[in-house]
Amino acid sequence: MLQKYFPILVWTRSYTQLDLSSDLLAAVIVTIMLIPQSLAYALLAGLPPEVGLYASIAPLIVYAVFGTSRTLAVGPVAVASLMTAAAVGELATQGSPEYVGAAVVLAFLSGLMLTVMGLLRLGFLANFLSHPVISGFITASAIIISAGQLKNLTGVPIHGHNLLHIVESFVSQIDQLNIPTTLIGVAAVAFLYWSRKRVKPLLRGKGYSERLADAGAKMAPILSIVVTTSIVFLLGLDGAGVKIIGDIPNVLPTIHIPGFDRELWMSIATPALLISIVGYVETVSVAQTLAAKRRQRIDPNQELIALGTANLGSAVSGGFPVTGGFSRSVVNFEAGAQTPAAGAFTALGIAFATVFLTPLLFFLPKATLGATIFVAVLSLIDKKSIVHTFEYSKADFAAMMATILLTLTTGVEIGITAGVLLSLFLHLQRTSKPHYAIVGRVRGTEHFRNILRHDVQTHPETLSIRVDESLYFPNARFLEDTINGALADNAAIRNVVLMCPAVNFIDSSALESLELLNERLRDSGVRLHLSEVKGPVMDRLTKTHFLSNLSGNIYLSHNDAFEELCTHDC
Amino acid sequence: MLQKYFPILVWTRSYTQLDLSSDLLAAVIVTIMLIPQSLAYALLAGLPPEVGLYASIAPLIVYAVFGTSRTLAVGPVAVASLMTAAAVGELATQGSPEYVGAAVVLAFLSGLMLTVMGLLRLGFLANFLSHPVISGFITASAIIISAGQLKNLTGVPIHGHNLLHIVESFVSQIDQLNIPTTLIGVAAVAFLYWSRKRVKPLLRGKGYSERLADAGAKMAPILSIVVTTSIVFLLGLDGAGVKIIGDIPNVLPTIHIPGFDRELWMSIATPALLISIVGYVETVSVAQTLAAKRRQRIDPNQELIALGTANLGSAVSGGFPVTGGFSRSVVNFEAGAQTPAAGAFTALGIAFATVFLTPLLFFLPKATLGATIFVAVLSLIDKKSIVHTFEYSKADFAAMMATILLTLTTGVEIGITAGVLLSLFLHLQRTSKPHYAIVGRVRGTEHFRNILRHDVQTHPETLSIRVDESLYFPNARFLEDTINGALADNAAIRNVVLMCPAVNFIDSSALESLELLNERLRDSGVRLHLSEVKGPVMDRLTKTHFLSNLSGNIYLSHNDAFEELCTHDC
Repeated sequence: MLQKYFPILVWTRSYTQLDLSSDLLAAVIVTIMLIPQSLAYALLAGLPPEVGLYASIAPLIVYAVFGTSRTLAVGPVAVASLMTAAAVGELATQGSPEYVGAAVVLAFLSGLMLTVMGLLRLGFLANFLSHPVISGFITASAIIISAGQLKNLTGVPIHGHNLLHIVESFVSQIDQLNIPTTLIGVAAVAFLYWSRKRVKPLLRGKGYSERLADAGAKMAPILSIVVTTSIVFLLGLDGAGVKIIGDIPNVLPTIHIPGFDRELWMSIATPALLISIVGYVETVSVAQTLAAKRRQRIDPNQELIALGTANLGSAVSGGFPVTGGFSRSVVNFEAGAQTPAAGAFTALGIAFATVFLTPLLFFLPKATLGATIFVAVLSLIDKKSIVHTFEYSKADFAAMMATILLTLTTGVEIGITAGVLLSLFLHLQRTSKPHYAIVGRVRGTEHFRNILRHDVQTHPETLSIRVDESLYFPNARFLEDTINGALADNAAIRNVVLMCPAVNFIDSSALESLELLNERLRDSGVRLHLSEVKGPVMDRLTKTHFLSNLSGNIYLSHNDAFEELCTHDC
Repeated sequence: MLQKYFPILVWTRSYTQLDLSSDLLAAVIVTIMLIPQSLAYALLAGLPPEVGLYASIAPLIVYAVFGTSRTLAVGPVAVASLMTAAAVGELATQGSPEYVGAAVVLAFLSGLMLTVMGLLRLGFLANFLSHPVISGFITASAIIISAGQLKNLTGVPIHGHNLLHIVESFVSQIDQLNIPTTLIGVAAVAFLYWSRKRVKPLLRGKGYSERLADAGAKMAPILSIVVTTSIVFLLGLDGAGVKIIGDIPNVLPTIHIPGFDRELWMSIATPALLISIVGYVETVSVAQTLAAKRRQRIDPNQELIALGTANLGSAVSGGFPVTGGFSRSVVNFEAGAQTPAAGAFTALGIAFATVFLTPLLFFLPKATLGATIFVAVLSLIDKKSIVHTFEYSKADFAAMMATILLTLTTGVEIGITAGVLLSLFLHLQRTSKPHYAIVGRVRGTEHFRNILRHDVQTHPETLSIRVDESLYFPNARFLEDTINGALADNAAIRNVVLMCPAVNFIDSSALESLELLNERLRDSGVRLHLSEVKGPVMDRLTKTHFLSNLSGNIYLSHNDAFEELCTHDC
């Protein structure tokens, strides 16, 4: 029981020296990757850089205690950072203590929600965000994020959380473009983009091992930071209008539980829920992918608790919302991480960097961080998925495009809310009609098939309906409507037989519906029969008055019903 | 096409003299029943009596044009009146013109919503209110309504829209109880209650026909009005504190379209939606029951339009929300109504009464109307349904009790909102897990059955999973989790075969899920196969890259898969 809620009790028991060295190596590589990302995503969220570092310390340690994935790396990610900026930007001015405080509360509330959902085992709710919707949302977010980086890459003071505002704001202030900033920005983007595609093959070509070549490619962002920081420092470009990071307090975060402020909590509850859902869906998907490669198991409900407590950890240590990141988790996995201890070691690495390396980052140009973000989010734009969805299902494609367009034009909150509602709507529509077929007997056999697809025997006085789904409230009325319609159209019918081989359960609403149907049919001189009712369904029906009131019979096989009704009644 | 939206074009074409005389007779009986009910439900909604009469004129004529039920009688009903009082009571003081105006806007908005839902064919959404929830809600509402009638029956000035407030308010002001009012109230309740049970058998015993005995019983409310009004008038009881109806303007309503008031509309939108849903569910259920008795057909989406336009008609003629009433529709049906013309004739009857009979109602004591309401709503308390639900399904019972308790303690709005959310939650929970079974071969046959229920052949390297449902986004991840879990538990598995005889469709999310599953399985050295894929599903899959990327094969029959995988691979 304790192990279920504290997976750390499982993996620490068999922890070996080999695990330790693997985890340490992975931690070093992930730390190097996470330093620029933490700073960049804090910038994206409109927060001071140290908040990004803080969000990469406590959450990783907490996840190591509660997480069921051996290799997932949590921390600040692009989409959640954009959502944070959108949510908090409505409540406070960027740069104010209230802004940072609201981001902390956002992480805290999101953490609470996820933890409670995990304890109540509500992980299934995340399934109701359909794949086309989440994929469309992430694509649109990535476009907004990359467009928004024009601010850091050119120095033009852009405002706005949707594409229209960003473009308008950029165009109307294009005269404020700063040449040195733009040069650094464009060069950094070009270098990072090139290094993503080319460094690994280059190093492989020079005879380095797969692993070393990979690690080399991962150093590109750090290299760009070192080079551009040096250039700004040496040429004194901060005096020429190049925005730099400046002072980062080189102290570790203190623990502080955010106070309860009713108004703030109420206004931040909806964004917190949306960030929770989006973050959780991504986290589970990444964790599942990595776990499957090593035939490991993750527990989706425990992941809710792990992500929730990680966010609580982020909040009480002055961080902002975190989720499981795809690229850093893959790096962690490929660098050979064996257990969540790698995450805890990474946290120590970030803590070390916070204390000792931040002074070196004083002259780091924001343009370099902008370039890091810009190149990182490009991979989130999922053109393939758009094309595939279009080819496969027009309804899913419509939901996807609606999400993309709404997100681009109105921002992330309305976009994802509309996406969730659209997903739900499509689901409700699909489940409101049970799959059914009017069937007849295949000549010379005891098999019954859809009369629309096969040449089958039927009887004018007997209507045979095969229901291919469980009967429950959303589809209960549909069956009533269908049978009433069939009877209104065909006055000869004297018997209706429901063939139930695929009915796995019947809820109270459907039972009520069947009772009504039975009464109505009796009133109009028609008997209702059932055939091939499954054992467990029959067990429950015998507890009710339905069977004794039933105007017709229960048949073990549909063929029995067909034989009897067409001999006695016909 | 025109006939679909204007069902009046269908039934007027074959209208006969016999239909006319039947409809006229039914209209007279329903009119007599509807006069006291209209006044009583207006009183329940906190509105002046004429508003109840107005709500029984235009809506009936509009429904005759748009309705697909031949016998449904629309008008003010108890539960919608209570919901109106709760909604409007929050926005204005009872008795003020703003209060009446808000009730009109409520009907208008509800009418708009229903009409738009009908045009968009969204009738299926009403199915998501499960039967235990709606039944629980109506029972709780009936309890609140009957308790609230203590005000009219005793003269104690009760306030409050939930049971706790009503009881507290009654007890704390019990000293204001008015003796003559209480005498009239108790006598009227006793008489009406007795007449409902006894008058019909009594008349039948005296040799009257079934129909006449029935009509006699229906006269009891009118008789109670005549008698109590006369007593108040003759004894001058209005001077002794007995509240009377007083002046009712004896003019017909004028047409007035409510102006747009953003704030009012926004604050009334949610109650309007709730009234619409509850009203629609009841209307369709009554219409369906009556139509089935005569093998007639109703169109649930057209009923949305009919109920919607009826409410618009009510709003523009100064009425309040209307729905299809159960008891009055049954009376209409049993009195022999053949077409919706009976409703239009009833409207004329009410219009006549409004102009010529209202002066006679000056001394009508409110206690009599309270007694009418009290006795009418008692039949809405559905004890049987509570017991049956308890016996049949504990989950449904829990949802029902939650709805009842929340409605009783917090009022109708929170009660029905919680009910809708609970229904939806249960639905989502149920559909998040597809029904599936791990199967093996029944020895000596080609049949495959659940390994948990049957003694079957299996193979250690091959996992056969039969999916009993369509694959779509809410259950897509569940299958991934299940298979990943099974593989993590059993290292020997080299083949996974999904047996898909019941998979009617696969949406984009599930396809993505299968693609991921295929990749993950390949990474861990396991092949994924499909068997018994239905034709239409296969047609769509061939349009994708899934089949060419599939690590395993597609088998026509699961037995083929079993045979091949256990010869070649084993």
